[in-house]
Amino acid sequence: MKKLETKNRSWREIIHEVIYEADTPEGKLFDIALLALILMSIILVMLESVKEVDDKYHETLYAFEWGVTILFSIEYVLRVISIKKPTKYIFSFYGLIDLLSTLPMYLSAIFIGSHSLVALRALRLLRVFRILKLSRFVGESNQLMKALNASKAKIGVFLYFVLIVCVILGTIMYLIEGADNGFTSIPRSIYWSIVTLTTVGYGDIAPQTPLGQFIASITVIIGYAIIAIPTGIVSSEMTKGKVNLNTQSCPNCGYEGHKDNAEFCYHCGSKLNM
Amino acid sequence: MKKLETKNRSWREIIHEVIYEADTPEGKLFDIALLALILMSIILVMLESVKEVDDKYHETLYAFEWGVTILFSIEYVLRVISIKKPTKYIFSFYGLIDLLSTLPMYLSAIFIGSHSLVALRALRLLRVFRILKLSRFVGESNQLMKALNASKAKIGVFLYFVLIVCVILGTIMYLIEGADNGFTSIPRSIYWSIVTLTTVGYGDIAPQTPLGQFIASITVIIGYAIIAIPTGIVSSEMTKGKVNLNTQSCPNCGYEGHKDNAEFCYHCGSKLNM
Amino acid sequence: MKKLETKNRSWREIIHEVIYEADTPEGKLFDIALLALILMSIILVMLESVKEVDDKYHETLYAFEWGVTILFSIEYVLRVISIKKPTKYIFSFYGLIDLLSTLPMYLSAIFIGSHSLVALRALRLLRVFRILKLSRFVGESNQLMKALNASKAKIGVFLYFVLIVCVILGTIMYLIEGADNGFTSIPRSIYWSIVTLTTVGYGDIAPQTPLGQFIASITVIIGYAIIAIPTGIVSSEMTKGKVNLNTQSCPNCGYEGHKDNAEFCYHCGSKLNM
Amino acid sequence: MKKLETKNRSWREIIHEVIYEADTPEGKLFDIALLALILMSIILVMLESVKEVDDKYHETLYAFEWGVTILFSIEYVLRVISIKKPTKYIFSFYGLIDLLSTLPMYLSAIFIGSHSLVALRALRLLRVFRILKLSRFVGESNQLMKALNASKAKIGVFLYFVLIVCVILGTIMYLIEGADNGFTSIPRSIYWSIVTLTTVGYGDIAPQTPLGQFIASITVIIGYAIIAIPTGIVSSEMTKGKVNLNTQSCPNCGYEGHKDNAEFCYHCGSKLNM
Repeated sequence: MKKLETKNRSWREIIHEVIYEADTPEGKLFDIALLALILMSIILVMLESVKEVDDKYHETLYAFEWGVTILFSIEYVLRVISIKKPTKYIFSFYGLIDLLSTLPMYLSAIFIGSHSLVALRALRLLRVFRILKLSRFVGESNQLMKALNASKAKIGVFLYFVLIVCVILGTIMYLIEGADNGFTSIPRSIYWSIVTLTTVGYGDIAPQTPLGQFIASITVIIGYAIIAIPTGIVSSEMTKGKVNLNTQSCPNCGYEGHKDNAEFCYHCGSKLNM
Repeated sequence: MKKLETKNRSWREIIHEVIYEADTPEGKLFDIALLALILMSIILVMLESVKEVDDKYHETLYAFEWGVTILFSIEYVLRVISIKKPTKYIFSFYGLIDLLSTLPMYLSAIFIGSHSLVALRALRLLRVFRILKLSRFVGESNQLMKALNASKAKIGVFLYFVLIVCVILGTIMYLIEGADNGFTSIPRSIYWSIVTLTTVGYGDIAPQTPLGQFIASITVIIGYAIIAIPTGIVSSEMTKGKVNLNTQSCPNCGYEGHKDNAEFCYHCGSKLNM
Repeated sequence: MKKLETKNRSWREIIHEVIYEADTPEGKLFDIALLALILMSIILVMLESVKEVDDKYHETLYAFEWGVTILFSIEYVLRVISIKKPTKYIFSFYGLIDLLSTLPMYLSAIFIGSHSLVALRALRLLRVFRILKLSRFVGESNQLMKALNASKAKIGVFLYFVLIVCVILGTIMYLIEGADNGFTSIPRSIYWSIVTLTTVGYGDIAPQTPLGQFIASITVIIGYAIIAIPTGIVSSEMTKGKVNLNTQSCPNCGYEGHKDNAEFCYHCGSKLNM
Repeated sequence: MKKLETKNRSWREIIHEVIYEADTPEGKLFDIALLALILMSIILVMLESVKEVDDKYHETLYAFEWGVTILFSIEYVLRVISIKKPTKYIFSFYGLIDLLSTLPMYLSAIFIGSHSLVALRALRLLRVFRILKLSRFVGESNQLMKALNASKAKIGVFLYFVLIVCVILGTIMYLIEGADNGFTSIPRSIYWSIVTLTTVGYGDIAPQTPLGQFIASITVIIGYAIIAIPTGIVSSEMTKGKVNLNTQSCPNCGYEGHKDNAEFCYHCGSKLNM
């Protein structure tokens, strides 16, 4: 923590320090207020969707929603004007999220004549994306991201094979069970096989014939066993990062088995060339 | 096991040895009796909630409940008076649990005039917390706790992202399916998305429209695949503890994670004291 | 494979070689015939339970059942008389299973006067245990068993904590939802919490109140996340067995990091003291 | 990428380069067109199964289906004539898949008199196997396949034990619950136990009696805990491949699993050629 310097600084610099940094007490206070505002706005969106609450408190919720929108708009404007290259913020991930957090209300005020239910409901969706503003407050999980990034090719291949198995098993069930038992089309049967293979198992569609139940048993066992594959992929990537010793040898003593980020040899203390 | 010394010791010391330690035959016998009493009291609470049993045996169960409460009260008093600093026990985890195990019955006797159903039911809940007294008998699983402790930050980030995904997918389904198909509000739709992503899948709410079933298929596949992440986190922490690196830190730079047989710090090259 | 010696051997030794060993062609043939008989007998038990099949083919199934029982009885007698210490077989795991495979039919023939439905159904259950005779044909999975054995203490602690969480969450839901919503007693609510925490999620009991659905969301997230714990325990035990290098150092060159079963030093080739 | 040589080459060689290789722009274009055609044909099969779509667009879909079939036939013929040994392609995995992708339509044209519903539905299934043609476009995941191959014996043993547990638990539930509660036969009860142990939990069959719900609780806990076993098996195989041991075998004793930097065999002490 450091003291917020106000002398010899333009208001632009001061605002930038408070909004973009969290080193000063003022900056930290801004972050806490912003966090509270985001959480409150998400709860607002949820409450508005509950019929009993909306019937009683519609005007109150509407007023609060405008209050939140105006505050987010002020935050957006402050962010734009206190940064050297505004476009760098406006087109960044957070810039777009912040814009989506404020536009819907203004749009609904402009288009209020249409009373389109779908449009109103779509606007509600956009406001939920405000929850992504919270990501600012989560520290970067570097090793976690690195392991996921290294796994993604193998997980992609895995998901491809899962899809193929689901399409084929779904079509087999469509043939065996038929429309009378809920398997009304191949896409719907594939929906069943995906829900089953992933061990979710709603039960909204379930096989009725003995042969269908036999195929379903095979499907659930496949789904149960192959969870091991993505888990093994991610586990081995993460363990490698923690445990593995690369094949570099120390120029001085020749020892191998140094850590990935090691700078000195664990055996003789000499510097390693990285 | 050792013999319980009774010569030259105050009754306070003897009681302390029997209750708090399990080295002597008397101490072990006390522990077994306490374990049996705890298990019996929990079964009592469960039986009282089953209407058929309560109708037949209400007075018997009530009598047993008082018996158990009085025995737990005696145990509580003995623990308080046989320890040097009573407050250290009273405000500890086990002290609070033991208090919660005895208070409800006395409270229900005092407030019996109200006949409040909710209060009676809440008192039943408090008695169930007696099950936590069993934790005394479980040895500490040191390595397990250490691995969980090291993982908790990453698992926190993981859960945060799971929540965000659930909120967004839940709101999307609320828009697509609507109240007629069970998705009556955004909170209820988020309940659906959490139940689905975790592969539980009650089926009490399930998508009816083709587009909704398509989004649901994506949701279940995401849930199925990302189980790998917390598993990878915990597995790599536990494997690291088993396979490779000890907890010694370099006296010079403080870095940990050296190999078991390392003589020099891989980070700064200083010699490690083994 | 070796030739079955018949010269200079008692019939007892020959039978022992054919039944207990699988080195000779006769021994292997016996094993295959036994495997086929076991599979057929299990399918028989299953078919007898299907009403449509039993109505049509009751006498045929009954005849086959007697055939199977007589063959298993012959096998049992041969095993007993061809081994030096009969009691060693009779009271072993396989001896008891083999006895259970033949007794039920004889018992049902003796007790046929009672026509007790429960007894008949219980006898069917005993015959299903024949499936354990198949274990003879599965090779021992040494490393798998070793890893599971090493993990069992930690998995026991894990299951203990899962049970505690289920009891507490189940009781909370019993208070919140109540009998009207399916949570008719604490044991039944604990059944719900176990089914939910393990991500099975039948949906036969599901929370109806908003607060109940909120607690349920927490339950499913806990269940989803803590799958990582037993997986991490078992994974690290198995990986340790494959990867880990013990701390033994070579008496000749001092190198460490040898495999658990290594007999020679990987660095200088000298013999290691095990 | 290289330029497609047309000078001094027979049309057979040119076609072979375009179809079987993807080095030239023409070859890559062919692959992209083929991928699009496969995806379109699968969507066609799915659309034909949806009653509402088929009622409206039956002729259009039928025309498209013929177009796709003719194009796949042309591809099949080109593949056969542009390869030196046609039988090597015709009887390969992809050759059989490609044949299955075209035959059904011709067969349905020939057998159109029968109007057999089952036959028509079976023909639809065969066309879904076209999805396996996509495998051409997925790179080989060598390490993933190697780890799975090494795990398969242990996973086989695991699945065998899962089946035994399911048969026994299913039969127990059949005895306890009986036909009135949905458990109409032992096979159907085994279907329930498989669906439950794999944590899918449709809820189409669920225990009603307290004892049955207790046995079900044990079943789900077993299923929840033993997910750790296949996961541990696959994880340790993948981690082993990443962390430690290479595939070199000792020239003297043939043992594998030496460390990356090992100079001598840990089993027999002989020198390894690196």
